[in-house]
Amino acid sequence: MRQARNILFVMFDQLRWDYLSCYGHPTLKTPHIDRLAARGVRFTRAYVQAPLCGPSRMSTYTGRYVHSHGASWNATPLKVGEQTMGDHLRRAGMDCWLVGKTHMAADAEGMARLGLEPDSVIGARVAECGFDVFERDDGMRAVGPDGPLKEPGGTAYDAYLAARGYPGDNPWHDHANSGVDAAGNVLSGWFMQNAGEAANIEEPDSETPYLTRRGMEFIEGRGEAPWLCHLSYIKPHWPYIVPAPYNDMYGPGDVLPPNRSAAEYDNAHPVLKAFMTTPVGQAFARDDVREAVIPAYMGLIKQCDDQMGLLFDWLEKTGRMEDTMIVLTSDHGDFLGDHWMGEKTFFQDAAVKVPLIIYDPSPEADATRGTTCDELVEAIDLAPTFVDVAGGTVPEHVLEGHSLLPLLHGAGGWERDRVICEYDFAATPLADRLGLSVREAVMFMVADTRWKLIHCEGDFPPLLFDLENDPDELVDLGRDPAHAEVVAQMYAKLHAWTRRVAQRTTRTEEQLVELRKTLRRRGVVLGVYDENDVPLDLTVAYRDRKAPDRRG
Amino acid sequence: MRQARNILFVMFDQLRWDYLSCYGHPTLKTPHIDRLAARGVRFTRAYVQAPLCGPSRMSTYTGRYVHSHGASWNATPLKVGEQTMGDHLRRAGMDCWLVGKTHMAADAEGMARLGLEPDSVIGARVAECGFDVFERDDGMRAVGPDGPLKEPGGTAYDAYLAARGYPGDNPWHDHANSGVDAAGNVLSGWFMQNAGEAANIEEPDSETPYLTRRGMEFIEGRGEAPWLCHLSYIKPHWPYIVPAPYNDMYGPGDVLPPNRSAAEYDNAHPVLKAFMTTPVGQAFARDDVREAVIPAYMGLIKQCDDQMGLLFDWLEKTGRMEDTMIVLTSDHGDFLGDHWMGEKTFFQDAAVKVPLIIYDPSPEADATRGTTCDELVEAIDLAPTFVDVAGGTVPEHVLEGHSLLPLLHGAGGWERDRVICEYDFAATPLADRLGLSVREAVMFMVADTRWKLIHCEGDFPPLLFDLENDPDELVDLGRDPAHAEVVAQMYAKLHAWTRRVAQRTTRTEEQLVELRKTLRRRGVVLGVYDENDVPLDLTVAYRDRKAPDRRG
Repeated sequence: MRQARNILFVMFDQLRWDYLSCYGHPTLKTPHIDRLAARGVRFTRAYVQAPLCGPSRMSTYTGRYVHSHGASWNATPLKVGEQTMGDHLRRAGMDCWLVGKTHMAADAEGMARLGLEPDSVIGARVAECGFDVFERDDGMRAVGPDGPLKEPGGTAYDAYLAARGYPGDNPWHDHANSGVDAAGNVLSGWFMQNAGEAANIEEPDSETPYLTRRGMEFIEGRGEAPWLCHLSYIKPHWPYIVPAPYNDMYGPGDVLPPNRSAAEYDNAHPVLKAFMTTPVGQAFARDDVREAVIPAYMGLIKQCDDQMGLLFDWLEKTGRMEDTMIVLTSDHGDFLGDHWMGEKTFFQDAAVKVPLIIYDPSPEADATRGTTCDELVEAIDLAPTFVDVAGGTVPEHVLEGHSLLPLLHGAGGWERDRVICEYDFAATPLADRLGLSVREAVMFMVADTRWKLIHCEGDFPPLLFDLENDPDELVDLGRDPAHAEVVAQMYAKLHAWTRRVAQRTTRTEEQLVELRKTLRRRGVVLGVYDENDVPLDLTVAYRDRKAPDRRG
Repeated sequence: MRQARNILFVMFDQLRWDYLSCYGHPTLKTPHIDRLAARGVRFTRAYVQAPLCGPSRMSTYTGRYVHSHGASWNATPLKVGEQTMGDHLRRAGMDCWLVGKTHMAADAEGMARLGLEPDSVIGARVAECGFDVFERDDGMRAVGPDGPLKEPGGTAYDAYLAARGYPGDNPWHDHANSGVDAAGNVLSGWFMQNAGEAANIEEPDSETPYLTRRGMEFIEGRGEAPWLCHLSYIKPHWPYIVPAPYNDMYGPGDVLPPNRSAAEYDNAHPVLKAFMTTPVGQAFARDDVREAVIPAYMGLIKQCDDQMGLLFDWLEKTGRMEDTMIVLTSDHGDFLGDHWMGEKTFFQDAAVKVPLIIYDPSPEADATRGTTCDELVEAIDLAPTFVDVAGGTVPEHVLEGHSLLPLLHGAGGWERDRVICEYDFAATPLADRLGLSVREAVMFMVADTRWKLIHCEGDFPPLLFDLENDPDELVDLGRDPAHAEVVAQMYAKLHAWTRRVAQRTTRTEEQLVELRKTLRRRGVVLGVYDENDVPLDLTVAYRDRKAPDRRG
């Protein structure tokens, strides 16, 4: 095996950490992803920086916490000034390409301020979160009474579906994400009662196989230059519906009992209770919803795993398995009724812990193949890892994570003693229900291997979970006086982080250290009473000067 | 009087808050500045966001804390993506021009990343901190063994001196900032023993009168469009030397006793002790240094005041006093030997409290003329004040301060209960002396009207001053167990601030609130089991659809 020269960065959307057989799911068998784990390192404590697509991805792509980059909700653009892994990788000589989803919202105002044209090379990269776009596809052709979620225009996938003969103005909805009844009525995948239907599409035409093929086409077309390919799937994210045969593979017998308790609901912290009692939370409290959705969700994952099998076989065949690092992860999880919630926007592990498997073809990684790593790692560690693989210098004044290569190579020295996750719900109806301003509808999670503290702005008490004695996170100790000292310790960790230097991104650490020695050699002479106070060379420019009379 | 339509934003450099007679100096009479105070509001608790030129100014110009914009030291560029008061004012229809100093370091890397040419209109503004430049002059033609502090090129003032017949390669040093002996030897202003010499320049050719004239020339040349003019003086910043007659106006009898105590020195917190024992601190502990420097410093201020007299008379004569708001402040103070320190890089009031006088010509301000305001205000309040004067909407998602207009108009409702100041000394030799990494050599101050807490990264205890019972800030209570509760309260204020939403600058507060109502009307249907769960109009696009057979 050679050193990795390329990186295949596979991200699934809303894939829960424990819905893979290598992570312990009892009935969902994912042999292909398991195979990757057997050849790489499987991380057991990998956390995302936000339990929502947009901000989580912006952290992954920038290598910075949400509190640093500010794109804290799906519709909130990433600032034009934020550097991305694309900037850092290209500087290190590696291309950085996108095939699939990013959830990027371009900072149109920031671009206009700087005169950046969206159709210029630089403008396009800035608008696409630093990627060169082979294919951008966020899925989600949603339409409401006020119009579509995104300005229409049509993705390549829409065009593909049309070319393949799927009719109508929204084949993404009518075929890829809906069933059909005998009378030809569309059974919309947006309605969870239809989750068990077969999507009305030939399986190879559905989104996951389509993107796999697009990824292969990208890789096939590459020349000799090293590349990162962000192959970013839309699934198993809702709408929860999957084509045959995957719609039929799992049934109610595969639905695990929800991880929840009556006491957890009754005693819930007011902010948690508000999330539990949203329409989504109430829906996922129902057995019929879980029994409809979870088998479809498992089918979507099974389809993803089969696609990984095709992809890995192809990489073997083409030789790319020998020179390509493969990273497989997700942007967040899915509660699926755990903790009386659906979706993902809170901080229990079902939402914020993700699968993370990294296969490194280099011989240095042989010692760790097939092992697990229990260290606390974060999604922001991926960008510095990639820069490290590309042979670049990790810009530690910009990137807030750390390269995982030492862990992949079995070296010690990993020192992170807490992970951070954040959620900004200022743009959601829940903020109104809780009576919170846009500055108060914000939460932080800080967790180590023993404790998880959640701080909610707006004068709420904290939440605290004992991950060792209550790994299911059912008992909130945040208001328990006996745990006041632990709460204080976790707040100290949180605040050491909030005080961090995160915006001094225009000076490297090396430059700052160098300035300690060199600045006084540029002629600024401070606190010097007379010439004898200071070495000659520092002030030689000011000595023995003559001031002839003024001319003219 | 008419409503203010222009803003004259006068900043002095290193002008201590209490070295003006309106602020109580017993022997330094500044009748012209006092006259402005008599016609405006004099703020008694105005704090800068950093006790150093560069970061303090970057906060003033961006309206954001140092922790938000990241340009935390003099040589650290302001990120290309940071908006400035120029951006906000031009959006509100007001030009924003510079005459004098900014201490801006352009973000050349960030500009290159975005393809911004420094000589384009946009590039020039970004490189000049958002100002259109009538004249940029930071002073400081320093030269050391490794070369000049800044790349040579020559300021307009250098050219002016040459045209006026001052000879040599560095007339800024040899004439404007040095004396001369009978033999024609330059007595460098960099050496404090020369502070009492008359600068070897005709007084009208020295920097302060020069910039006053340049300011008048700028104003005179303006058309009808409203403008902000940042008339930004280099003085009374060191080199401490001033032309006749100002060099002779004050003597040792005018030097106030230093505000310091032996106990303060002996018991100093280790970080404070390190600042006290720098060469600058040791120099300013000496009586001969103070007696040389302080009279020169007072002369420089007296010259500034006389220039204000000329300027205000001229504004009266030209009618500008009737339509122009005048703001007079400083970027930080100067210890001058107080607390065993020179310079300004710590957090006692001598360094971080600044004079702030605002004259508003509008009738709404009549009620407050000649009054003082004791509220806690910050330099970051100026940018929103200016936007308010310009008639714009203050972008509260970007600007972290608040318009002072309500205070100027005698309205209540000012709610700030703490001020913040920060200092990053990662690039200084002191960080090495204290053995601190570039992330540890950072300090925060949080103060209210009663207490001032200083937090130093690097596992140090805090400092705490009781501003009511110890207004001279001589007794550090930070390690006193009896004040643990106060320390905790002040840390709570600090951390509420470090957790603040500061980077979500691409969404206005109004947009976020609007999204609470509108987002679900774009077709994303969450947690809906069947059609009956949700109002018809939200899902009408997904109902009653037919899926005809595939074509072709």
